[in-house]
Order: sequence, then structure tokens, then C-alpha cells
Amino acid sequence: MFRYKIRIEYDGRGFVGWQRQDNGPSVQQALEEAVEKFCGETVTLFGAGRTDSGVHALGQVAHFDLERENGADTVRDALNFHLKPHAVSVLEAELTECDFDARLSARERVYLYRITNRRAPLGLNRGLSWWVPAPLDAEAMNEAAKGLIGEHDFTTFRATHCQAKSPVKTLDVLDVSRSGEVIEIAARARSFLHHQVRNLVGTLKLAGEGKWTAGDVKAALEKKDRAAGGPTAPPDGLYLVEVVY
Amino acid sequence: MFRYKIRIEYDGRGFVGWQRQDNGPSVQQALEEAVEKFCGETVTLFGAGRTDSGVHALGQVAHFDLERENGADTVRDALNFHLKPHAVSVLEAELTECDFDARLSARERVYLYRITNRRAPLGLNRGLSWWVPAPLDAEAMNEAAKGLIGEHDFTTFRATHCQAKSPVKTLDVLDVSRSGEVIEIAARARSFLHHQVRNLVGTLKLAGEGKWTAGDVKAALEKKDRAAGGPTAPPDGLYLVEVVY
Repeated sequence: MFRYKIRIEYDGRGFVGWQRQDNGPSVQQALEEAVEKFCGETVTLFGAGRTDSGVHALGQVAHFDLERENGADTVRDALNFHLKPHAVSVLEAELTECDFDARLSARERVYLYRITNRRAPLGLNRGLSWWVPAPLDAEAMNEAAKGLIGEHDFTTFRATHCQAKSPVKTLDVLDVSRSGEVIEIAARARSFLHHQVRNLVGTLKLAGEGKWTAGDVKAALEKKDRAAGGPTAPPDGLYLVEVVY
Repeated sequence: MFRYKIRIEYDGRGFVGWQRQDNGPSVQQALEEAVEKFCGETVTLFGAGRTDSGVHALGQVAHFDLERENGADTVRDALNFHLKPHAVSVLEAELTECDFDARLSARERVYLYRITNRRAPLGLNRGLSWWVPAPLDAEAMNEAAKGLIGEHDFTTFRATHCQAKSPVKTLDVLDVSRSGEVIEIAARARSFLHHQVRNLVGTLKLAGEGKWTAGDVKAALEKKDRAAGGPTAPPDGLYLVEVVY
């Protein structure tokens, strides 16, 4: 048995998300079908992050097993050949240890959330950024973000249907910066709760608008109640950038 | 009569180009229809650059005349409201002098061409960059580009159906730089011939692959023959960035 690790880029539009579902095409399915077309083997792919519908990846990581060995570059190029109809690209493939697990071995997941903050809507990059027309104070957002870094019970920022055993997570980085009309929010943690980044961003937006103070954001965290948090930001601006092992 | 100048961003995919044509939707038509929906006036838009099908704009400029005056911000917001189904956004609108002409008053047009130079195809940004899998030497491309700067007869880089009176143009800037896997080519001139930037890029790619020397590129220019130039690069990577007045 040969275990392969692949690094993947995709445009989340047109997919129901990473994971196979009955209601539409998933990135996992596109990749599993590409593997089968390439070598005839029926495999299951295990991804590091279960990105939602409309969420993009610059560096998703997944593993799968093949019975026969193939060169890593052959695997990458053959998968890309069969992926042509899909906005999915295998950036890298490598033969890895049999105990490597894309999900369980991950030490850190890196997400980026992109907001286009200007009066005019998006002409280019529709679906690839969250358009927020009201002026946002990125420094106020960054100040509010500081209060969320560290180990906390993140129930306030957790989707109500989230299946994680514990709502306690350690947020290593939550950094907000502006460059022109683009605001980028970087988030790093060993793992995230379902919708956590989007719920954090939706709440930081309230701080950026001046509706909430950094203290309000901290108080919402401490309530451990989803109803106390801000709305969920749309998937458009969210990118799984990197998975660190 | 009130003349308005607008600055426009668009995704060139799904359009036959800037200019109205019988064979499909154009950016000009989308904007003219938005003006009519907004204020009932039937107008003709005059754009600074006639971008081709699939070519994008970060800062196209156009002018049109209204019989009744409207606030500039109202014009911008109302056009954007009616443009919603289209990947076109009016970034800015202003009331301008009646002798302002988006095309004739332009002192300089700024284009950017983006190449993604890596083995893996595009997952994200399909249609928004030219994927070139073979390694390109950006410094060699930049060296070859230097020989094209200045006033020349650009017949070699001119579409055979180009309608410009003269093939002589002055290229102020042609600069190639790499950042990671992305190569950007900046081009600035008072005006360009039809397909000039894409033909220049297609030729510089040959220099990047090591197939042509800087001397070969210069010799092609001097032949004043389209057949002596390299192929036309696809529209995907081309952006009209700015028009200077």
C-alpha cells in the first residue's frame, strides 16, 4: 500500500464544499474520480480541512492510498489531466509514510479572509472576496481580534450544528490588516470549529463599523452563546491557505 | 448637456469585448442599458480602450452625455444597481468638461499582463491569468523587452486586421518582473495597436523559454512583419489598469 499526500488549489464556487454530499459536486468527489480515471483504483480521500460550499483553497492537503506505486509527478500530472473540467488543481504530490494522516497529523491550519471595502461593488473577483461597502476601521478590527487570540471556549463563534467534541480551541493568530481597499484577516490554529473563521469575521466587521467595541467582542466570546456573536460572513472571502505538519 | 466620466472595473469573460457587436454581450452595451434604466436617456458610451473578448479592466475610462444633471455619486450607485447581473462595476463617476473625450484626451494607457508560471494548472483564477507550465526566465524576458521600448514601427506586433492609421507607436514602459510563480508584464504607451500587448507578451514568452534571444526579438521588430513575431498571448492575463489624462 502506498500513501500519497497531495496539496490542492480550488475555486469553491460550483462545489457543495470539500466533502462528498448527495446534493451536488464536491471537491473530494472530483479528486476521487480523477484518481480512478488515472489508475483504475477506487480510493477515499481524506482532507485536512472540510471547507464549506463557496470556500476556496490555496493549499488544502489530502491523503489517499494506492495499491500500485506511481511516481509522485506522474500522480500530480495525471490527476490534473483528469481534473481539467473542474476548477481544481493538484499543486504537488508526494509519496509519504503510511501513518501520515492529512487531518490528524496537521499541526496548524492557516486561513485567510479577504474583504473588499469600497463603495463600488465587485466587477472582477466576484465570489472571491466579501464586498463590504460601509467603511471599516481595520485597526479597530485588529484591536478587537487581539482579545480572541489564545485558548478559549469558542461556542459563540461555532456553528450550532458543529460536531466537534469540545468548543475549546487555541487561536494562535488572528490578524487584521488593510492594503488599499482590501482588508485581509489571517487566522491560524491547530484546528477550527465549524464556521469559526466566518463567524469571527462577521463579528470583527461589527467592530470595524464602530457598532461594537473590542470590549463588546470579548464579552460576546465570554457569553459562550452563538446568539451573542455577530453574523456569519459569506464563504466568498475565505481561503484555506496552508496546512502545517 | 452634461458630460460624465466613469472609471470601470470588469471581468472580460462572458463579454465579446468592450465594444458593441452583433455576436454577443459587450461591456459597452451593459453600461448603456444601465444608463437607460437609471434615467431613461439613450446614450452612447465612448471608452478609452477597446478591450477584446476575455480581456479585463481594473480602470477602463468612458464618457457619455446626459440631458439632465445628476449627482456624480448617484450616477455611480444607480449604474451599479442596474449592472448587478453583470461582472461590471463603476468605481467612480464625475461630471466633467464637455470637451473631455475618454479616447482622444488620454495621455497614457497602462496595461498589465499576468502569467502564472508553474507546472500545475490553475485551480483558482482560471481565465484571470495565462497558465504557462514551462519554466520562464523573467530576467531574459525583461532584457528582451528593453529592446522594444521607445518609438518604433510595431507592424510585427500588430493584428493583421488592425485599423490604426500608422503602425508607429511609442512604448514608454515594458517591464517584466517575477514574484513567486507569477510573472507580471507592465506596458505603458499613449496608445497601442490592436493585439499589441498580447503579441508582445507572446513573443517575450519565447525569450523566457530560451527559444529566442533578446537579439532575435529586436530583429523580429525590425522586420516589420507580423509573421516574424511570436504568437498572440491569450486574453486571460490582460488587464487595462489605468488611463492617464
